[in-house]
Amino acid sequence: MPKTIDVTELILRDAHQSLMATRMAMEDMVPACEDIDKAGYWSVECWGGATFDSCIRFLNEDPWERLRMFRKLLPNSRLQMLLRGQNLLGYRHYEDGVVDRFVDKAAENGMDVFRVFDALNDIRNVRRSIKAVRKAGKHAQGTICYTVSPLHTVTGYVEMAEQLVDLGCESICIKDMAALLKPQPAYDIVKAIKNACGEETRVHVHVHATTGVTLVSLMKAIEAGADCVDTAISSLSLGPGHNPTESLVEMLEGTPYACKLDKARLLKVKEYFAGIRPRYQEFLSNITGVETEIFDSQIPGGMISNMESQLKQQGAGDKLKEVLLEVPNVRKDAGYPPLVTPSSQIVGTQAVFNVMMGRYKVLTGEFADLMLGYYGSTLGQRDPEVLQLAQKHAKKDAITSRPADLLKPEWDALRSAGLALKGCNGSDEDVLTYAMFPQVAQKFFTTRSEGPKNLGKDPSAKPAAAAPAGPDTGKGPVMTTIAYDVKLNGKTHKVTVAPAT
Amino acid sequence: MPKTIDVTELILRDAHQSLMATRMAMEDMVPACEDIDKAGYWSVECWGGATFDSCIRFLNEDPWERLRMFRKLLPNSRLQMLLRGQNLLGYRHYEDGVVDRFVDKAAENGMDVFRVFDALNDIRNVRRSIKAVRKAGKHAQGTICYTVSPLHTVTGYVEMAEQLVDLGCESICIKDMAALLKPQPAYDIVKAIKNACGEETRVHVHVHATTGVTLVSLMKAIEAGADCVDTAISSLSLGPGHNPTESLVEMLEGTPYACKLDKARLLKVKEYFAGIRPRYQEFLSNITGVETEIFDSQIPGGMISNMESQLKQQGAGDKLKEVLLEVPNVRKDAGYPPLVTPSSQIVGTQAVFNVMMGRYKVLTGEFADLMLGYYGSTLGQRDPEVLQLAQKHAKKDAITSRPADLLKPEWDALRSAGLALKGCNGSDEDVLTYAMFPQVAQKFFTTRSEGPKNLGKDPSAKPAAAAPAGPDTGKGPVMTTIAYDVKLNGKTHKVTVAPAT
Repeated sequence: MPKTIDVTELILRDAHQSLMATRMAMEDMVPACEDIDKAGYWSVECWGGATFDSCIRFLNEDPWERLRMFRKLLPNSRLQMLLRGQNLLGYRHYEDGVVDRFVDKAAENGMDVFRVFDALNDIRNVRRSIKAVRKAGKHAQGTICYTVSPLHTVTGYVEMAEQLVDLGCESICIKDMAALLKPQPAYDIVKAIKNACGEETRVHVHVHATTGVTLVSLMKAIEAGADCVDTAISSLSLGPGHNPTESLVEMLEGTPYACKLDKARLLKVKEYFAGIRPRYQEFLSNITGVETEIFDSQIPGGMISNMESQLKQQGAGDKLKEVLLEVPNVRKDAGYPPLVTPSSQIVGTQAVFNVMMGRYKVLTGEFADLMLGYYGSTLGQRDPEVLQLAQKHAKKDAITSRPADLLKPEWDALRSAGLALKGCNGSDEDVLTYAMFPQVAQKFFTTRSEGPKNLGKDPSAKPAAAAPAGPDTGKGPVMTTIAYDVKLNGKTHKVTVAPAT
Repeated sequence: MPKTIDVTELILRDAHQSLMATRMAMEDMVPACEDIDKAGYWSVECWGGATFDSCIRFLNEDPWERLRMFRKLLPNSRLQMLLRGQNLLGYRHYEDGVVDRFVDKAAENGMDVFRVFDALNDIRNVRRSIKAVRKAGKHAQGTICYTVSPLHTVTGYVEMAEQLVDLGCESICIKDMAALLKPQPAYDIVKAIKNACGEETRVHVHVHATTGVTLVSLMKAIEAGADCVDTAISSLSLGPGHNPTESLVEMLEGTPYACKLDKARLLKVKEYFAGIRPRYQEFLSNITGVETEIFDSQIPGGMISNMESQLKQQGAGDKLKEVLLEVPNVRKDAGYPPLVTPSSQIVGTQAVFNVMMGRYKVLTGEFADLMLGYYGSTLGQRDPEVLQLAQKHAKKDAITSRPADLLKPEWDALRSAGLALKGCNGSDEDVLTYAMFPQVAQKFFTTRSEGPKNLGKDPSAKPAAAAPAGPDTGKGPVMTTIAYDVKLNGKTHKVTVAPAT
């Protein structure tokens, strides 16, 4: 009997986040849910990441209502979400009481599996949310962000896995957000984690497809003992997205491993989303092929094209290569953080500044915070000179404590402020929505009653006049664009860098 | 020291044949040749397959001149071609004398490595060309077309490999034209061939990417001892094409294997063809993602979209699924031939006829010939009832001899006919061009002096009125479209099926 390899289907969250800027409306997912639910997945990732933000910012959808609908539509499936540790689904650190409440409410509304990560792999930033998940009786999946640097070693990843197991995580996820995980390290890391933590420790592997090598990495991870891998149905796969679910199933035929997925249902899901995809043409990623240069810059694929378009707006389109070469330098100076939301944006933006204004002539506030420990600790030492500049710029000292320890209890204040908003329904869920995205939530509460807005368009309809290029088209990732007006020698430079998905 | 894995680069032949209907002009390849030549490939596939036909049919290029240019531009590289055994580069069997002359002239003009295959894996159909290659002192690569059926076994493939080695082949190629080769059989077949034929027998593996699993298959083939694998530079890869060269290189990092390719040069080649690709937009394959249904129908990806568009023209667009389900039946009745030019077109067309007119109510002449052994022998028994129908239809008996044995010496007649054509330059090369494609060559000889015609278009130029869909656009593969007017119950059906690339 071949060993069963479990699968997490990403189509309802990371697939459309990576390939169509998180714009898929719930309405367009509903018809596929029955087949997804009955296909035999270990879990269905359908919430968290950028979907929460996108729901209220673009789709006029209540993210909590979306979660409840998934719960109803996927009665046989484990629902899974991506949670940014102490950042929850926002872009700042939250005080522990808010973390507890968020996890409670997500669990109460139907979430089963919480994949918890911190962009810097700082275990202190995931501890509280993992504890909250455990307390809610749900599955806590501790996550290791995979990156490559002179300091990152198999041993280091294993130590982190052991710490996560000690926190009570029921499974470990190796999260490769930029498709950097090559077959041999995939094998080595999974094998070493299994050896150190015990065969019974579930290991899940999440990879993107951008560099073209990661289906091979999944094969090697499986050979090393991985229990579950993440894929997306083929009609919404590849490029900056993920490996195709159907290819995974076929790949294992004849090997000592097998996926117990219903191929007829997979085909129906594939065909369904093949029909949906063209409706979101204007949001589709430009990257459709393979980009192995990412192994050098480590900037996720989605971000490169954004950087390119934004540099062009500044009349600096020819600077992209310089920026990509500068990214590894900035990353080194910052102590080799993995590059994932929000560190990817912070490092990327600083690299743009360094190329356009001279190295560290201008520091972003976020980069200064990163240097000073306000996002947590990094594996490497920060460059002492750049650290000094950061202190001078931010007019504050470096910290070594857990960033959230600096925060005072904030739930009551958030609740009062949230409830005071027009259109707030008084629920803790609404208060949490407000806590994540105060400005956006305020607007959303007033428009919510108008109902969801489907941004998909009939691809056979006559196209309107060509949309102008640039951020106004609404294309590109969901998350807050970092924009700066920078004056240098009397000249104002507009610099905006949108984050990767 | 890691074992060196050799690479055959496909960009100059199969990559653009599979992805842009073989339309790339020599002019658009020239600037990349220096980097390709110096990147460190084992060989550069640049001739044969459908390129010969495309040169004279669409590009007004002399294919022999193209070969001589490649020889000049790639002085450090082994030039490689795909040769259809006794069919050479045409679509019928040639008498042995013509085979000898073709191979001689290809060798004389600069070809180094001849990959020789027969669509039915009938060793009798490759014997003469392999002998000719050996006699010319060039590298004969014996080829096994990979397919899946209840009769095809690892043992069978090994036997064929042994026969090819006995013929004096210097290497064995496993050719997976429809992306059906999964990782485990890839491993098993390569391992078994190495065991049976000796470690010193070079094994090359050629796979397409259509099903999404075959880079994993290359990894497994390498682990089993494969010496060389085929890839295409990433900007012209994937879909019905091949796995990206750069991904192969990166995939092997840290393993006991390594490619000795110059990554800086690969990047230059990638970027160059990324700029060329949009010029051929109108010829690009519609298939960009992954199609795992091919595992069932075994119809190569390029052919499915052609079938679809042609069925639509007959107002039978809804019949595609039926046709795809019928293909395996027809293939079984024909004795399980691999599906590759020309068997893929013959079986595919008959499946269309069976669905539209009733099973075997109408037989194509080619299908009758296939049933009667005029293309060679198949592994399986042919269905006796269908065989009878074929005899009745074709008014001739089945044969068991080598098809070319029925042919009388034909070189002198071909030479006289060729030399009589206006514009023929009197060379044996011109006579061979005429022998391959008599009608097309006749026209080409009269227009040759006008010089090459580049079908690429500036993608930023204002598009003309939308081209009508269908075969008139010139989109689709190069090879002869099989077209029939079929009368049934007084109604005329136009049925055309274009071959897969």
